[in-house]
Amino acid sequence: MLDTTLRDGAQGANVSFALQDKIRIALKLDELGVDYIEGGWPYSNPKDYQFFKAMKEYPLARAKLAAFGSTRRKNTRPSQDESLNSIVKADVPVAVIFGKSWTLHVDKVLEATREENLAMISESVEYLREHGMEVIYDAEHFYQGYQEDPEYALATLEAAWRAGARVIVLADTNGGTPPHEVYRITAEVRRRFPNMPLGAHMHNDIGCAVANTLMAVAAGARHVQGTINGIGERTGNADLVQILPSLELKMGLRVLREEAPPVKFAKLREVSRFVYEALGLQPNPYQPYVGEFAFAHKGGVHADAVMKVPRAYEHIDPQLVGNRRVFVVSEMAGGASVVLKAAEVLGLALNKRDEAVRRALEEIKMLEKEGYSFDVAPASAMLILLRHLGLYRERFRILEWRVVTGPAEASYAVVKVLVEGRTMLEAGEGVGPVHAIDVALRKALVGAFPELSDVQLRDYKVILPTAVKSTESVVRVVSEFTDGERIWRTTGVSSNIVMASLMALRDGYDFVLQTNSLNKNNIGR
Amino acid sequence: MLDTTLRDGAQGANVSFALQDKIRIALKLDELGVDYIEGGWPYSNPKDYQFFKAMKEYPLARAKLAAFGSTRRKNTRPSQDESLNSIVKADVPVAVIFGKSWTLHVDKVLEATREENLAMISESVEYLREHGMEVIYDAEHFYQGYQEDPEYALATLEAAWRAGARVIVLADTNGGTPPHEVYRITAEVRRRFPNMPLGAHMHNDIGCAVANTLMAVAAGARHVQGTINGIGERTGNADLVQILPSLELKMGLRVLREEAPPVKFAKLREVSRFVYEALGLQPNPYQPYVGEFAFAHKGGVHADAVMKVPRAYEHIDPQLVGNRRVFVVSEMAGGASVVLKAAEVLGLALNKRDEAVRRALEEIKMLEKEGYSFDVAPASAMLILLRHLGLYRERFRILEWRVVTGPAEASYAVVKVLVEGRTMLEAGEGVGPVHAIDVALRKALVGAFPELSDVQLRDYKVILPTAVKSTESVVRVVSEFTDGERIWRTTGVSSNIVMASLMALRDGYDFVLQTNSLNKNNIGR
Repeated sequence: MLDTTLRDGAQGANVSFALQDKIRIALKLDELGVDYIEGGWPYSNPKDYQFFKAMKEYPLARAKLAAFGSTRRKNTRPSQDESLNSIVKADVPVAVIFGKSWTLHVDKVLEATREENLAMISESVEYLREHGMEVIYDAEHFYQGYQEDPEYALATLEAAWRAGARVIVLADTNGGTPPHEVYRITAEVRRRFPNMPLGAHMHNDIGCAVANTLMAVAAGARHVQGTINGIGERTGNADLVQILPSLELKMGLRVLREEAPPVKFAKLREVSRFVYEALGLQPNPYQPYVGEFAFAHKGGVHADAVMKVPRAYEHIDPQLVGNRRVFVVSEMAGGASVVLKAAEVLGLALNKRDEAVRRALEEIKMLEKEGYSFDVAPASAMLILLRHLGLYRERFRILEWRVVTGPAEASYAVVKVLVEGRTMLEAGEGVGPVHAIDVALRKALVGAFPELSDVQLRDYKVILPTAVKSTESVVRVVSEFTDGERIWRTTGVSSNIVMASLMALRDGYDFVLQTNSLNKNNIGR
Repeated sequence: MLDTTLRDGAQGANVSFALQDKIRIALKLDELGVDYIEGGWPYSNPKDYQFFKAMKEYPLARAKLAAFGSTRRKNTRPSQDESLNSIVKADVPVAVIFGKSWTLHVDKVLEATREENLAMISESVEYLREHGMEVIYDAEHFYQGYQEDPEYALATLEAAWRAGARVIVLADTNGGTPPHEVYRITAEVRRRFPNMPLGAHMHNDIGCAVANTLMAVAAGARHVQGTINGIGERTGNADLVQILPSLELKMGLRVLREEAPPVKFAKLREVSRFVYEALGLQPNPYQPYVGEFAFAHKGGVHADAVMKVPRAYEHIDPQLVGNRRVFVVSEMAGGASVVLKAAEVLGLALNKRDEAVRRALEEIKMLEKEGYSFDVAPASAMLILLRHLGLYRERFRILEWRVVTGPAEASYAVVKVLVEGRTMLEAGEGVGPVHAIDVALRKALVGAFPELSDVQLRDYKVILPTAVKSTESVVRVVSEFTDGERIWRTTGVSSNIVMASLMALRDGYDFVLQTNSLNKNNIGR
């Protein structure tokens, strides 16, 4: 299996790796247990030499480094071809070269004769082999080429294979081949060349890169290429994070290094997060296997059933891939999901038939009729639950506030807060009314609760939840907070946008105080 | 083809639709040309009745509305079953019911005998048919059920079919079946029941929902279910935005209504954006077919080749799906979309190479760097364009304003406005600061411009568009207005939420005045 996050992944829009990140990603991939790391295309991007050079100081436990490039140019000798020599110069054990399988490309893009293209392939493979490199041959546009001229497309594969390429990789470069066609064509290649070691390199232009990789494997391919999180040009490459567990857990194949499955895939989520982080991208919460919501249960029916029989609504045990089951609190869910959320977030073992739980649920449902949605803001729901359970200890209460705002730079706020029995009056100045009141509120709280100084707003949204809409309607605010470790979401609803924002801010800070004191009490018991 | 964005899509984490959004999405889906719109699960969520009731006032051109629910409970009569009666009560032409195909679920979740489960299926279908409904039967967990006990799984399908279900939908409810297995099992069902009309309902837990739908169709299914943008529980449902063009453009099947392909799919991108916007979610720029980068060429090799021979690196013409080719990673659109929008909204025939158009575009691009997004608020972009074209005539200007707000019922605003050369000072009282300033602004304007009294706000959303987020960040407000005939959207960006709201309101009113006077002038010519 070959990872090309650092080469083909880097072709993605909004993707750009710093040298230090490339090194760290390579080390993570080695730890995960990949066979090949395609680290760059030095002819196209000379900066990639820096990476190959830097990697000399970081010996890899298992993975082999590979440099990428094209076959030699037409009408030249391999030894005089800059592109091939740039691969040799990278000084790594493996070369990955791509050549043309589609007559359209040979005729119109290369403008070479078909015989010359075959010579370009075989001479390039031989040249790199003569330089002691292991060669992987990528047959660019193979599936489209096969559809238009199967005999010629097969001849290009044979040229690479006879010249000594170790794997012949069938690429769906434009990403538009549907999965049943990938299967059919791969199976036909297999029948024609039963001993040729085949690989798959898929793009996601019709949303089938992962499935097409699995289909190629089902048809006999034994090498796969992809990128972490599916980053790559246009719609991206096949996502290894999704492919690897499916190959092993769904298709019974061995991938990665020889350890027990739980150990192998437990690293997947970490590697996925690491790559998002390096690129400054938000992780996709809906990503298969590793996403925040990959094992999230919302409907009451599902939540109940999954507790009885996990595999009733879970295709694998989430722990196998370093993930976990979560329950989403919603208007649709019964008590089950609130109880499960309480166990997950607060560490409380509750019974959904408990009187206090039922009363909390009633309040939640009533508030949802007024425009709240706790589904997206479970921390506010947990505060309601704590009140009904008698576990809520009031740490502060907002008594009064005023804001004055206008087109000038500053808005001003005054807030009166009862903090641990003391009344505080604080003023805040901010770029807008919400900022001004946040500044005033934090001033009032941080003295008594220094732990709040680490709390940051991560996101903020406002919508009109009701059917009839005007500037008079109630608005729903949803805020997301972090303290560097946890992430939690709160909500506020009011026809005054500043009030709704303040409610969400208040719950955001209160959630930290309540959960901290709950944990302390639990430890005390 | 059945869209279940409003039912199964609503099961997604962080997905919550307001009633007005549900109505608008249903109308968009009808415009797109879908056959069935599954609008809700009234037994599980009684609020869905509001939607079905509200839709009586919006006749659909083609789509049929469907209500979702389960088969009857064990050991009861259909006529006494609340779940079935809730479907009847929805008063729509189509019922979609799900039943159990997997013996694990029958034994452990339902705790019913296998014979009773078959009776539950057939009696439920019959009951709904007797009430004049067209019935679509969803065989929950069919693929897993078939793998463990094929004969029983097939018997459940037969029970539904013989009872009069119009389509038998094979569901991969846990989303863990790999595509080659989906093909094999669907083909086996087809062989067993050659005349049974089959459908596919796939989940994305191993990243194969789109491909699995295509595989089921390749094996003989002729009905597909999915959601717009693949929203749905856990990792989501199959994305119709990706499936529909593949069925037609890659597999040669007819989907949507009988119009020429360019017309059909040109709406896809718009519907996709609309659903993201309703949920306050950022569109996925890498989404197949409709994403911002779906046809983005970054590598120099590809960019050059695609100019020579587009199909060398493009699997379809991007215009077929309302998308476009982009070369550089740029902020947004070229002149083409602004020019097209001007023709559509203002009735102006412009050339994108025109100096004034180019300057307007530069201003738009600059503002987008500051956090604006004119994609979702074209009316504000049109006002900028009119200024650069010299066609903008100032009708009013906001000179000053102040708002005072607090937790009390009323907020107060003062606004000073220059209206047709006269300075007006008006006060407004409202339930919140945005309402107060809107009241004051309308008071200042309606005397001079009585046409504004018909203008209503239809929707309002606020998000933080920048990467670094705090209460200090700039917010982006998007407002939607109507005068009963037209709908238009405007935007404002500021670190003061009241200011951003006021900018969007100002553009909303100004858009009416500017377009009215433009039309008068055009008529005068």
